[in-house]
Amino acid sequence: MSHQNTKNHVATQYVTFGNPPDELTLESGESFGPVTLAYETYGTLNPDKSNAILVLHAFTGDAHAAGYHEGDTKPGWWDDMIGPGKAFDTDAYFVICSNVLGGCKGSTGPSSINPNTGAPYGLDFPLITIGDMVACQKRLIEYLGITQLLSVAGGSMGGMQVLAWLTMYPEFLRSAIPIATTMKHSPQQIAFNEVGRQAIMSDPHWNSGKYYDGPLPARGLSVARMIGHITYMSDVSMEEKFGRQKKTEVQPFKFTPDFEVEGYLNYRGDNFVKRFDANSYLYISKAMDNFDATRGQTLNKAFERARNVQVLIMAFKSDWLYPAYQSQEIVKACKLCGIETTYCEIHSTYGHDAFLLEVEEETHLISHFLKKVVHAKEGIRKEAYAIRPSGNRRSYFSRLFSA
Amino acid sequence: MSHQNTKNHVATQYVTFGNPPDELTLESGESFGPVTLAYETYGTLNPDKSNAILVLHAFTGDAHAAGYHEGDTKPGWWDDMIGPGKAFDTDAYFVICSNVLGGCKGSTGPSSINPNTGAPYGLDFPLITIGDMVACQKRLIEYLGITQLLSVAGGSMGGMQVLAWLTMYPEFLRSAIPIATTMKHSPQQIAFNEVGRQAIMSDPHWNSGKYYDGPLPARGLSVARMIGHITYMSDVSMEEKFGRQKKTEVQPFKFTPDFEVEGYLNYRGDNFVKRFDANSYLYISKAMDNFDATRGQTLNKAFERARNVQVLIMAFKSDWLYPAYQSQEIVKACKLCGIETTYCEIHSTYGHDAFLLEVEEETHLISHFLKKVVHAKEGIRKEAYAIRPSGNRRSYFSRLFSA
Repeated sequence: MSHQNTKNHVATQYVTFGNPPDELTLESGESFGPVTLAYETYGTLNPDKSNAILVLHAFTGDAHAAGYHEGDTKPGWWDDMIGPGKAFDTDAYFVICSNVLGGCKGSTGPSSINPNTGAPYGLDFPLITIGDMVACQKRLIEYLGITQLLSVAGGSMGGMQVLAWLTMYPEFLRSAIPIATTMKHSPQQIAFNEVGRQAIMSDPHWNSGKYYDGPLPARGLSVARMIGHITYMSDVSMEEKFGRQKKTEVQPFKFTPDFEVEGYLNYRGDNFVKRFDANSYLYISKAMDNFDATRGQTLNKAFERARNVQVLIMAFKSDWLYPAYQSQEIVKACKLCGIETTYCEIHSTYGHDAFLLEVEEETHLISHFLKKVVHAKEGIRKEAYAIRPSGNRRSYFSRLFSA
Repeated sequence: MSHQNTKNHVATQYVTFGNPPDELTLESGESFGPVTLAYETYGTLNPDKSNAILVLHAFTGDAHAAGYHEGDTKPGWWDDMIGPGKAFDTDAYFVICSNVLGGCKGSTGPSSINPNTGAPYGLDFPLITIGDMVACQKRLIEYLGITQLLSVAGGSMGGMQVLAWLTMYPEFLRSAIPIATTMKHSPQQIAFNEVGRQAIMSDPHWNSGKYYDGPLPARGLSVARMIGHITYMSDVSMEEKFGRQKKTEVQPFKFTPDFEVEGYLNYRGDNFVKRFDANSYLYISKAMDNFDATRGQTLNKAFERARNVQVLIMAFKSDWLYPAYQSQEIVKACKLCGIETTYCEIHSTYGHDAFLLEVEEETHLISHFLKKVVHAKEGIRKEAYAIRPSGNRRSYFSRLFSA
C-alpha cells in the first residue's frame, strides 16, 4: 500500500459520559465518572449503520489510527491499513478508533483532572481492566447510534479488547479480528511488564504518582520503554537492523551507548517520555496482566455466547512476546464454542511488531474476510470477488489455513 | 548427583601481580596494576601438574564454585558439578576457579581501592575485556606452576572466556568446554545488557559511579537484575514455576507485585543488591558486549592455533538468550580450523539457566569427555570406561551427536 499524495486530514473528537450520579460501575465494583473518550472516525457510516468497524489500539497507541492531523508529517499508527482501498477500506467501511480508558491521549486516565480535587488523579485513579476499556467503547458505539459492529479488530492489547468484546457483547458483533494476542498473559509477559513498572516506580521523580507539577519520571519511563522495544522485535530483525554496528561518534564517556542498537533504544526511550504518561503505563500494563478472556470459565465456555460471530485470528512466527501458541489457544476456544474461525500464522521476521508491519498479508486476509462477513449478512454468495491488480497473492494463500 | 553429608570446607585464596612498574597491559593499551585475583581450588594437583581444570564463572558468579565456606549453608555455584565422583571429579582432577578482573568478590574491580587515591576506583577503573580477564587467569595458572591445563570450562560469560583461552593461549590447553555461549553478542543480547546499564545509571544514587560512601544504587541494580532473570529462564519454565498464581497477602498498594512471578523477581532483584556491585555490573556487561571471539578474523582463522585442543560444546534447546545457533557457529568455526569437536544440544525447559541445572546430562558428557582427553594424552585406548551404576544413560546418548 503506497501512501496517498493528498493528505487526508482528520481530527480527534471527544465524548463524555458517566456524569454523576450516572457513573460507570467498574469491574472492580468501584463507581467512576465522568469518563471522556477521545476518538476518531474514517469513512462514512452508511444509512443502515451496518458498516462500522471498531479498531482497537495496542498498549501505548491512541485514537489517531489513520490520516493526518493538521500540520503533521506522520500519519496515524495504522494508516497503512485504514483508508480508501486499504484493508479497512474507508470507501466501504466506517472505521472508529478510540483511546482507551486509563490512557493519556485524550481519554480519561491518571493524568486527567479529578473533578473532585481539581488536580490530576495520579494514583487516586481506580484500577481498571480491559473489560472496563471495552465497556467504555460500547458507550461510544451507542452514542454513535450503532447497534451492531461489522467487526472489531486490534493487535496485541487491541486483540485483548477484541476478545473482551467477544465475551461481553457478542450480540453487538458480526465479526472479530484478534491479532498477535493472548487469552491471558503468561508469567514471562507479566514479568516484562513488572520490570517496566519497577523501573518507573524506582525513579524518585515518580514520587508515588504525584509528578504532574514537577519533573517527570523520565529516566524510569525510558528504561521501561527500552525493555518493551526489545520484546517487540525479534532476534533476527534486530540483527538485520543493527548487527554489531557501532556508532561513529567519539565516545564521551565509558558507558555511553556505542552500539547502534543501544543508541536506537535510548533514542526511542527518550522520545517515548514526551508522548506517554508514566502512570498510564502502570495502569494499562496492569490491566493487561490481569486480563483473562476465560473469566475463570473452561475454554469451551469462554466464547459460548459468540457463536454467531465470525473470527479471523492472526499470529506471526517470530513473535516471541505473544507467541503463536497463544493465538492457537484462542482458535481452540473459538472452535470449542462452535465459532466459524480462520487462523493464519504469518511468516515474518519482525517479531511482535509484525502486526504493524506485515501490511500486505494482513491486507489480503482482512479485506477478504470482511467481504465474506458483509456477504454473509447480505445473503449474497458470489463465487469470486473482484481481483485487485497488485500484490503477491500466492505467498499468503500458501500459508493460510483454516484451523 | 547427591550432596555429600560431610561438608567440604573450602576457603578463598588471593594472588596479586602486576605491581608497578610491572603493570598489565590491557587490550585497550592502558597499563593497569596491581591486580588481585580471588580464587579457590578443589582436589589435588598431581605431581606432573597435568590434571588441572580451570572453571570460569558467568556474569555475576565468583570464585566460590564448590564446597562450603565455614558457616555457610549453601555450597558454591557449581557444586553439583565439582567434587568427588562429579563431572569435574576432584578425586581425579585439580579444579581452579577465580573471580574475574572487574568483579566484586575479591578480585580487583571498580569497587576496589585505587592505591593512587586511597578511594575506590569507581569509573576510574579502566574498561576491560574478556581477553583481559583471561590474561589475568593465565597469570594465576602460571603462579600455580601449571604449564598446561587439562581443560577450561564455563557457561555463558564463562564460555566466552573459554573461547578467549582458545584464541589467546591454545598451547596452554588440552581441551575446552564452552557451554551455552556465543562467539559474540547479538544486538538483542547487547540490548538487554544496555537496558540493565541504563537502569543502574538512571538511579540517582549511582552518582556517576561514586556511591561507595553513600546509599547504593539499589533500585536501579535490582531492576537490571530482574531483566536478567527473565532472560535466564524460559517461557515454559516460568509457566511451570509460577503460572498466573497470585500471592495471597493483602495488596497494600495498587502496584504492589501481586503475581507470584512479580514477587519472585523483586525478591531476587533486592537480594542481588546485597551481593553485587553496580559498577562491576556496568564493566563486566560491557566486556561481554564488546567480546568477539573472531577478533575480526574469518571463522576459519578464529581458532587456527587451537588445532590440538579437543572441544566439547553444549547448548540447550530452550535457551533463548544464548540460542543454540550461536553454539553451532562455534562448532562451525572449530571444524573449519580442523579441531576435534563434539557438539551436544540438550533438551531442557530451563532456558539459559539450564547450564547450572541440567546436571545429569552435563555430568555424563563432561566426565566421558575429560576421560577421553586424559587417555588421548596417555596414549591409552580403552574400549570401554567403567560404567557407573546410576543415571539414565539412554536419554543423553540419543541426543548426543558429533557435529
